[in-house]
Amino acid sequence: MPDLADTTAEKETGRLEAFSDGVFGVAITLLALEIAVGHGTPDTDLGLQQAIFGLWPKYLAFFASFFQILFMWMAHHTIFSLTRRVNTELMLANGLLLFLVVLVPFPTKTLGEFVLTEARHTATVFYTGYFVLISAAFNLLVFVVAHPAYGLLRPGLPATVPTALKRSQWVGLACNVAIMGLAFVSVWLALGLSTAMWGYWAFLSKAKGPKAA
Amino acid sequence: MPDLADTTAEKETGRLEAFSDGVFGVAITLLALEIAVGHGTPDTDLGLQQAIFGLWPKYLAFFASFFQILFMWMAHHTIFSLTRRVNTELMLANGLLLFLVVLVPFPTKTLGEFVLTEARHTATVFYTGYFVLISAAFNLLVFVVAHPAYGLLRPGLPATVPTALKRSQWVGLACNVAIMGLAFVSVWLALGLSTAMWGYWAFLSKAKGPKAA
Amino acid sequence: MPDLADTTAEKETGRLEAFSDGVFGVAITLLALEIAVGHGTPDTDLGLQQAIFGLWPKYLAFFASFFQILFMWMAHHTIFSLTRRVNTELMLANGLLLFLVVLVPFPTKTLGEFVLTEARHTATVFYTGYFVLISAAFNLLVFVVAHPAYGLLRPGLPATVPTALKRSQWVGLACNVAIMGLAFVSVWLALGLSTAMWGYWAFLSKAKGPKAA
Amino acid sequence: MPDLADTTAEKETGRLEAFSDGVFGVAITLLALEIAVGHGTPDTDLGLQQAIFGLWPKYLAFFASFFQILFMWMAHHTIFSLTRRVNTELMLANGLLLFLVVLVPFPTKTLGEFVLTEARHTATVFYTGYFVLISAAFNLLVFVVAHPAYGLLRPGLPATVPTALKRSQWVGLACNVAIMGLAFVSVWLALGLSTAMWGYWAFLSKAKGPKAA
Repeated sequence: MPDLADTTAEKETGRLEAFSDGVFGVAITLLALEIAVGHGTPDTDLGLQQAIFGLWPKYLAFFASFFQILFMWMAHHTIFSLTRRVNTELMLANGLLLFLVVLVPFPTKTLGEFVLTEARHTATVFYTGYFVLISAAFNLLVFVVAHPAYGLLRPGLPATVPTALKRSQWVGLACNVAIMGLAFVSVWLALGLSTAMWGYWAFLSKAKGPKAA
Repeated sequence: MPDLADTTAEKETGRLEAFSDGVFGVAITLLALEIAVGHGTPDTDLGLQQAIFGLWPKYLAFFASFFQILFMWMAHHTIFSLTRRVNTELMLANGLLLFLVVLVPFPTKTLGEFVLTEARHTATVFYTGYFVLISAAFNLLVFVVAHPAYGLLRPGLPATVPTALKRSQWVGLACNVAIMGLAFVSVWLALGLSTAMWGYWAFLSKAKGPKAA
Repeated sequence: MPDLADTTAEKETGRLEAFSDGVFGVAITLLALEIAVGHGTPDTDLGLQQAIFGLWPKYLAFFASFFQILFMWMAHHTIFSLTRRVNTELMLANGLLLFLVVLVPFPTKTLGEFVLTEARHTATVFYTGYFVLISAAFNLLVFVVAHPAYGLLRPGLPATVPTALKRSQWVGLACNVAIMGLAFVSVWLALGLSTAMWGYWAFLSKAKGPKAA
Repeated sequence: MPDLADTTAEKETGRLEAFSDGVFGVAITLLALEIAVGHGTPDTDLGLQQAIFGLWPKYLAFFASFFQILFMWMAHHTIFSLTRRVNTELMLANGLLLFLVVLVPFPTKTLGEFVLTEARHTATVFYTGYFVLISAAFNLLVFVVAHPAYGLLRPGLPATVPTALKRSQWVGLACNVAIMGLAFVSVWLALGLSTAMWGYWAFLSKAKGPKAA
């Protein structure tokens, strides 16, 4: 039963969501700017074919980051679907998360460029470590959203919802730290687990979303 | 007769559409980044004129891709106008399609750069082959939308709608494969047919849209 | 008195407007990518100051194009505020206009780079000629919107509205052609008039907007 | 108690806000394009590590500008939440502000490139001076919004609201001028104060927002 105050609050949430969606959408697209055949590519069929196929590490890095941003967007969506209104703390926590999201193209192109070189461990630790930071920002966001004193959650949610939300974020952070540790040992194992984990997590949070709402 | 559940579902669909629109819109714009006169252009009227006119293969490639993205956006729009709610499968199928859409600038600039060189067959096969992939992603999207077990279609649609939707996508895929085959033989014929086909298809799906809705 | 059909039609218009807004917004922003001090700038206060001030032709070109896109957005807004529904012809005419809008950064950076060189006449004719093309696309858009057989205009508008709309677009096109002619003679006069005219026209169409609506 | 005219006016405001949000969102994202390891980075763990850590002035400049744009977006949001309708003067004042916002990446990358060189004073004066310009544009926007003859403010607001709005903008402008003066003396003090001030001001205007609304 929405009253007038609720309608205003929902409009507020809607505008922050729209802004966030814009940033997610542009970040996902900017990834694509990195994909191009080099300027020195020879003008022959064979040369161009080799150049197109030779970009496969960049395709992989782009594919991984694209779906990670998509899954993060879905998680962001789930969290905000539980949120009734916005305060300054939430705006700043969300701002910090968006700050990290728009920079995802940076570790992505670093990974794509260096994953086949001697510097592959540094590139992979940097890439997986970057998602540790993002996971931490998601934890902060969920902490602010679920903080009882702020009263940002939609009323009438079961008491288990904020607990489950926070727990799933802690699990995510722990997994990301473990994957980053793995990156010191095996580059490909770490990258595979990284993508798999976000996928798993998106399904999980998606499955929880409707139940909670 | 929308009830409360329908309203929530429509909001959901609306947000995914808005996100997709954002990605389509940015992808269409990023195409334009490739168009510029080279750094070595002489500072004379004649030199600049030659540089501006000399970019015509890039203009053509950009024109073709711009309208193909626009037509894809229209098709995407038609499909979602028949959709009542979103599930995880639809989100992933849509994500895969958007992944391919944001990368359209890559085959486009490859085509624009190499269509006048010895590597023109590779560039054209790559470009037309890329739209085979996109066509396959559209088939997957329509398969998910029309899958009876998911119940994503708007209720009350005639039984012919999902069938027509899927058939038009299969025809599109077949045409794209044929055009890609043609690209091995004639570059210009393949490019002309590619643009013409999407235009035809957009009109067709547009004509079907209102009837279905 | 909106009935159900009108509501659906307005939603349709709304989505096309949102897509167009996105393209206008991104095009306006992409202009800014061109503004940067060169890589060879000396690392001294004097060197950096000279580099920052030396970019003034680019600032001017960016300023002119920014406000021309903004005024075009306002004109686009006025035209769509008179439109009740969308058909395929309108989508294609709008697509052609957006195609030209996203490429505005191209003549803009060409102007900014060459307006102080021997090639300034070519650069200015290209820049002003580009807005002749845009003006022609606006004429096509207004022709489609006001075409009686399509019935796209909102009902109840005075009969003078479509006439006034079309006349103002013809005047705009004539002015742009005259300015392009002038660019063969005087670069600065043409550029000044070009910006002034769009401003004048935006005010005019804005003043007409509310009356019509 | 909204009547029909108010609804139309609010839709108008909403569209301008959406367009502005888009420009803010893209500007914030374009900042990220500057962050990349150089092309000459050696392909070794140590070389890549040094390259990643060596970018810290760019991270700092990006961080500062990201949050300044975010705080400006929040201020813009507060101002428009007090606004009932749009006129041409407001559109132009808003256009001028957006023009400056989309160019924030330019002083940001100049700062990030030169803050560790001999040219650091010029870079910092340019960066802080740029926010003097933005502050001036905000003053103009608030002047237009609060101008009694235009009647743009929402009815029923206490008489103290426009006064407070204008005063807080004058204070902001004065602070920015002082910080720019400081940049001639101490680069780091000026940059620290610049970020701190916008943060403080965002909190202040946020705190005032709900009271006024």
